[in-house]
Amino acid sequence: MKKTTFPSPQDAESAFYEALQGADLDAMMEVWADDEEIVCVHPGGERLVGYDAVRSGWAAIASSGRRLRVQQSDLTVVSGMMVTVHSLQEHISVQGQGGAPVAVVATNIYQRTGNGWRMIVHHASALPQGNRPSQQAPGDPKVLH
Amino acid sequence: MKKTTFPSPQDAESAFYEALQGADLDAMMEVWADDEEIVCVHPGGERLVGYDAVRSGWAAIASSGRRLRVQQSDLTVVSGMMVTVHSLQEHISVQGQGGAPVAVVATNIYQRTGNGWRMIVHHASALPQGNRPSQQAPGDPKVLH
Repeated sequence: MKKTTFPSPQDAESAFYEALQGADLDAMMEVWADDEEIVCVHPGGERLVGYDAVRSGWAAIASSGRRLRVQQSDLTVVSGMMVTVHSLQEHISVQGQGGAPVAVVATNIYQRTGNGWRMIVHHASALPQGNRPSQQAPGDPKVLH
Repeated sequence: MKKTTFPSPQDAESAFYEALQGADLDAMMEVWADDEEIVCVHPGGERLVGYDAVRSGWAAIASSGRRLRVQQSDLTVVSGMMVTVHSLQEHISVQGQGGAPVAVVATNIYQRTGNGWRMIVHHASALPQGNRPSQQAPGDPKVLH
C-alpha cells in the first residue's frame, strides 16, 4: 500500500527526481504504480517491465554508492484525464566528479490512480555527446530511424 | 489538414510502422499530430520537438535510400480516454544487408484528437547489443540511472 499521495503529475515528478538524487529506493518506489505493466529504461540499459524488475533496477543504482545530480530542462507536457506525458532533458553529473553533465532525454508518463498520480513509464536515453542538435543529422548512417 | 482517420491507437501504430518500412514520408506525417508539442527521438539521435523538426527527421530517413524492416514484440499498452501509451521492442534490419536485427525499445504515445488518434511521442533507443537482460546489470558503471 502506497503511503504518499501525489495530487498532480508534477508532484510525482518532483518526488521522482528527489528520490533519484537522494538514492532513496523506498521514496523512488513510492512514486511508481504497483503494476505489472510499468516500464523503466535506464540510459543504455535494458527494458525493465513490471514492479519487481523496475525495483531491482533502482535498487542496484541506489546501492552503487554514487550520488547523482540531475538538472531538468526543456519540459513539454501533454495532459490527459488519466494519463499525462512529460518529455524533458536531464543533465546528469556524479557528485564529486568533474566534467560536463551528461545530457539525457526522458519520457516520463504518469497515470491517475485511486490514490493520486503514479509513474508508469520512465524511458531515458543518452543524447549524442558533444553534438549540438544542428550537427546531428537524423539520416546519419548510425541512426537507424 | 489530415486526410486519414485512425479510429484507435493500434490503427495509428500500424500505419506508423507501415510508413517507416515503406520510407513513405507523407504517410508517416499523417500519423503524427500537427502540434508544436510532439516529440521524436530516433535511436542515438537528438530530441526533435514540434511538427517541422519531426518531419525533417523523417524526411532525412526517407531519403536515405535504405529500406528498413521492423518486427515488433513485447507490446504493453496503457489506455486512457485521451492518451494511450504503447511500449514495445523493435527488431530492425536493413533490407539487403545481413546480420542480426538491431533491438530497439520504443515508447509510442497517441492522443485522441477531433479526427481520430495521432502519435504525439516516439522515443526509441537501442538496447544493449548482444546482451540478454540478465547479463545487463542496471548498476553497471556505464549506466547513469
